[in-house]
Amino acid sequence: MTRNQLFSFIKSKESFLCVGLDPDLARLPESVRSEEEPVLAFLEGIINATKDYCVAYKPNLAFFEALGEKGWEIFAKTVQLIPDTHMIIADAKRGDIGNTARKYAQAFFDEFGCDALTVAPYMGHDSVTPFLESEGKWTVLLGLTSNPGSQDFQHRRMAGGVPLYELVVREATTWGTPDQLMFVVGATQGDSIQHLRTLAPDYFFLVPGVGAQGGDLETVARLGMNDHCGLLVNASRSILYASSGEDFADAAGQEAKRLQQEMKIYLGEYLLES
Amino acid sequence: MTRNQLFSFIKSKESFLCVGLDPDLARLPESVRSEEEPVLAFLEGIINATKDYCVAYKPNLAFFEALGEKGWEIFAKTVQLIPDTHMIIADAKRGDIGNTARKYAQAFFDEFGCDALTVAPYMGHDSVTPFLESEGKWTVLLGLTSNPGSQDFQHRRMAGGVPLYELVVREATTWGTPDQLMFVVGATQGDSIQHLRTLAPDYFFLVPGVGAQGGDLETVARLGMNDHCGLLVNASRSILYASSGEDFADAAGQEAKRLQQEMKIYLGEYLLES
Repeated sequence: MTRNQLFSFIKSKESFLCVGLDPDLARLPESVRSEEEPVLAFLEGIINATKDYCVAYKPNLAFFEALGEKGWEIFAKTVQLIPDTHMIIADAKRGDIGNTARKYAQAFFDEFGCDALTVAPYMGHDSVTPFLESEGKWTVLLGLTSNPGSQDFQHRRMAGGVPLYELVVREATTWGTPDQLMFVVGATQGDSIQHLRTLAPDYFFLVPGVGAQGGDLETVARLGMNDHCGLLVNASRSILYASSGEDFADAAGQEAKRLQQEMKIYLGEYLLES
Repeated sequence: MTRNQLFSFIKSKESFLCVGLDPDLARLPESVRSEEEPVLAFLEGIINATKDYCVAYKPNLAFFEALGEKGWEIFAKTVQLIPDTHMIIADAKRGDIGNTARKYAQAFFDEFGCDALTVAPYMGHDSVTPFLESEGKWTVLLGLTSNPGSQDFQHRRMAGGVPLYELVVREATTWGTPDQLMFVVGATQGDSIQHLRTLAPDYFFLVPGVGAQGGDLETVARLGMNDHCGLLVNASRSILYASSGEDFADAAGQEAKRLQQEMKIYLGEYLLES
């Protein structure tokens, strides 16, 4: 999926919502537990109920890996449930040296057919550039995350005064273009989104932390939007577990629609002219 | 496996060798390709031929994930091939926030029964400490890696003058003890190993980069050994692909034995008195 394709889906859906798929066995509604494959039944319900309101899905690999040997089969089937009109972002936060990175690219892009993969920056350019070699695929690099631990290293100042996350984003923009690379920027990071937007004006930001983690959607939209929207805002638990009853899918759809309606307003207010 | 158990295996084997399991389909010997499960047949041959000369195995998850849906089943079966006397280090370089990290811990420690997992530090304490909660299991945190990209961020100076990798190791030693936490320290990093040993005197270092990547075993042993050995030196390709013929297992065993014989000498020379 190209950047222009993504932008056209955003415009037609009036949404920049990404739905995070974190299927936690312990939180599955009673009503799907008797299904042969409860996780798949749950996710199928979620995807069908939300697909009109979002432009991307972000399966979180940890929740599939925690299912053991069967987890990857369920992951593969989940990917197949997602329509072609939606970007599939494998949230796996991989990162390793060249030949290993190429194997991860092969796994997620070729074997499973995902559009994008989250990648960690600590090991530097040769752990990131192998992912950029896959035509039409996206590398989503951790920039500034939404968790308290972002204070430990990402916010720490380098010699010269810039924080580490800024160094990471500055370096990475020399490795990949806005047509192959995005950055993870947490919604809880307020002004830092504005700062990162000046450093990487044309790149998409994948923004977790709205909803359960307390980030504010209006602030993100106001400070982060560019002329291609440039934002994919992720919500996981607030949608997946909107209801624990039989109406879980309806409730998820309602929550996704609520976010989409809010996003529609911000697209009207903050989308820059190109 | 406790630190003392690991040390006793090191003493009885006179080895601190870890064999990396990176099964690359394109490099499998002709002779196993007709097997029903070529990767498993290959790894079974490698493990049987090397187990007398090493104390740990490090399956690299990328190579299993690249096999697609079946990859995790093959990974689970590989883990079962490894004797209880050997530490199993899942080289997966995971790292994510609390609830996701706990799912990764569940996957690798509970579902697959690995002893240790490599973890990336960029997201900070709350992406690392969930792994430390698993009793008797090990978190192997990336400290200073062996690849050229380590120059991009790890070697960069922070305000105050220390490089990022030093900040990471200093912080992490406040999160976990030498009985639950190790660090990845590349063999190509020479003097930095000595420096890290002063910062983390009692911690084990998992050292990749000897062999195919050109690191020197004697230097690593001389600069890095402590009174519990404190080193697991990994070799992958130089052992796995020592021969591409029918004798691949014998050749792997010979290469492992050669490294073990060298390690025996260094254990005699450099092991500190406790």
